[in-house]
Amino acid sequence: MSNLQLAIQFFLQIAIILMFCRIVGLIAAKFGQPQVVAEMIAGVLLGPSLFGAIAPEWSAALFPKDSMKVLFPASQLGLALYMFIVGLEFRMDIVRERFRASVAVSFAGMAAPFILGALLGWYFKTHTSLFPAPTSLPNAAIFMGASMCITAFPMLARIIHFKGLAGTVMGTVAIGAGAIDDAMAWMLLAIVLAGFKGDASHALVNIGGAAAYVALTLLVIRPILAKWASRIEARGVVSDGEYAFLLSLMCLGAWWTDYIELHAVFGAFVMGAAMPRGLISRTLIERTQPLAVALLLPLFFTFSGLNTRIGSLNTAVLWLMCAAVLAAAIAGKGLACWAAARAAGVPNREALGIGVLMNARGLMELIIINIGLQNGIISQELFAILTIMAVITTLMASPIFDRLTSPARPAP
Amino acid sequence: MSNLQLAIQFFLQIAIILMFCRIVGLIAAKFGQPQVVAEMIAGVLLGPSLFGAIAPEWSAALFPKDSMKVLFPASQLGLALYMFIVGLEFRMDIVRERFRASVAVSFAGMAAPFILGALLGWYFKTHTSLFPAPTSLPNAAIFMGASMCITAFPMLARIIHFKGLAGTVMGTVAIGAGAIDDAMAWMLLAIVLAGFKGDASHALVNIGGAAAYVALTLLVIRPILAKWASRIEARGVVSDGEYAFLLSLMCLGAWWTDYIELHAVFGAFVMGAAMPRGLISRTLIERTQPLAVALLLPLFFTFSGLNTRIGSLNTAVLWLMCAAVLAAAIAGKGLACWAAARAAGVPNREALGIGVLMNARGLMELIIINIGLQNGIISQELFAILTIMAVITTLMASPIFDRLTSPARPAP
Repeated sequence: MSNLQLAIQFFLQIAIILMFCRIVGLIAAKFGQPQVVAEMIAGVLLGPSLFGAIAPEWSAALFPKDSMKVLFPASQLGLALYMFIVGLEFRMDIVRERFRASVAVSFAGMAAPFILGALLGWYFKTHTSLFPAPTSLPNAAIFMGASMCITAFPMLARIIHFKGLAGTVMGTVAIGAGAIDDAMAWMLLAIVLAGFKGDASHALVNIGGAAAYVALTLLVIRPILAKWASRIEARGVVSDGEYAFLLSLMCLGAWWTDYIELHAVFGAFVMGAAMPRGLISRTLIERTQPLAVALLLPLFFTFSGLNTRIGSLNTAVLWLMCAAVLAAAIAGKGLACWAAARAAGVPNREALGIGVLMNARGLMELIIINIGLQNGIISQELFAILTIMAVITTLMASPIFDRLTSPARPAP
Repeated sequence: MSNLQLAIQFFLQIAIILMFCRIVGLIAAKFGQPQVVAEMIAGVLLGPSLFGAIAPEWSAALFPKDSMKVLFPASQLGLALYMFIVGLEFRMDIVRERFRASVAVSFAGMAAPFILGALLGWYFKTHTSLFPAPTSLPNAAIFMGASMCITAFPMLARIIHFKGLAGTVMGTVAIGAGAIDDAMAWMLLAIVLAGFKGDASHALVNIGGAAAYVALTLLVIRPILAKWASRIEARGVVSDGEYAFLLSLMCLGAWWTDYIELHAVFGAFVMGAAMPRGLISRTLIERTQPLAVALLLPLFFTFSGLNTRIGSLNTAVLWLMCAAVLAAAIAGKGLACWAAARAAGVPNREALGIGVLMNARGLMELIIINIGLQNGIISQELFAILTIMAVITTLMASPIFDRLTSPARPAP
């Protein structure tokens, strides 16, 4: 396809993706589901699991292979902008506030699903072909463990904010634990990615490059920006030039962590976390979020859905594996977090709320398994299984959570 | 390049483009030039005219041919979003207010540059090789005429708004005349594009498709949206879903006008003009403009600059042509508009301001000549000449305009 044809196709794809996401969103809203859940599902439905299965010619006409050359970079840009916003919203101070309960919940929310996941990974690697041959046994176990640990941190934060629970025990503990878990899961993924590349020098470049990036960003760029911020705060407005400059820092971070074969999302998230809080972080979110979330992020869900072949789960054994993953995910994360919250003295209803919120995998799970698939760590079948797990744990969250918290809210 | 390599390259390109645009912007600001002028120049400097000439290996490493497959669609998306905003800001009511003077200025601002441009086009086609062989004599004359008529309408509107001149005679007349001229120049371009495709059936598809689109958008979609708008106004906020839906309408319009081989910018602009005014247009601008203008639009300037080879003007004759184009552009547009404004009873200082503003070609000229180059209507050399004309007429505007209007403003 010529550049012009690619551009024409790109406009058509965006138009159809956005409309379809909103139609699914309208249906999902009737079941009390947020838009992000609708977009996860819309992406899967637009892929070979539904649209590609019932109308293969139309699907090939709308998503020709060549057009992935545009859709993938654009979806990565959307994802990086989103992770930048997540980094901007990341608040270390909240973790400190309720430190003991946060750490207890987060430890339970890591250890239990990691152990269950690692066991499943070991079983899958030794007894099935769900992991490709090049993936070693330790890598399979760690990847599966890490992918179980994921919490939909941005979604969790958004639900808590949306329900006005930000100041409550439940809100504080869930956000604190979610933030710690998230950071840990990404570190585990970084280890898997570094280890997966095989030779030690490669792993060294990965880990060294990542450590250097985090150190440079948090210890050099952050203080410089903080100093600069006071002048901007005094002026009261972030100029267009300053905004573009901060965006280019984000792109530079995304590029670097992509370049050292980690992933763009790390760089974007860390750069977001390094931005000065207050006027600057607020302005960055205000200006970046609407278009990035409305226009570019749905492209990521669609790209992810195009890789999901639920039809590849074509045997009873594979569906059994899927059920096992789902059970381990819910028991490991949801139940363990509830138990830990109870043990740390959180009342039962609130502990249940924490468990349900921590259990939702959301977008984060899709990101981590897309990275796994891109790097050939997992098979198409395992990708489909983990997508189903991500969708179901996320679908569970809103209705249960609404029922748990509804007495606290006046009827609308 | 693999999809992943394309994504990595894309992040690096964005980071460098944004930083470079801002560095040029800082220098340009010292000479009283707005950011948009800086980005036009930055694009040219990043292309083969400077960066590619002094560091060809680095230039090839940063902008490999394959990466244009991403950069072009992304830059087109940025451009379409920008033209959507221009459409959102388009106000027919202002044109009506000062109708007589607006029409006089706009007529002068069309007729004089069109005749001078058409004469130059005729000369270039018959005596030089600045037009490729397939371009017919009428098409050469009309394209050159249309490209001379261009006014940097969005820039003009922004300068007038920024200087607080929106209610004045000068502001109203300039915006009214600019809007009329702009619409006319685009129509001429549509005729050239339709005619250029050769066979009559093709031209019919073009013109018929465009007319059908404008009719559908303004006569069907606009009233439906207007009805819907009253409910949104009563609620007081545009939901995320409504925002995404309106964006998808824009993409659909851009796709259609691209698909019928007109250009995405038409569809985006008309869809913007069809959006309900008030809360909806304000919200759309607020949410779309920051990221689109800061992140995506600079990609268009860079893509345009990558096509500009000022070095291809390698003979005295070509530079003479360039001088002739520049002289015709300034005389035809700037002087004619000043004279028409005087004749319509506008005081001299304000008439001069109108002439200077109307004379600036800005981004719009780049869009029209990029379309000409994409479609093979003009040669690389003529593209370079018209780029220089666009940059110089735009560079002239701010300093002269500031001098003309400064007594009206208190010193800062």
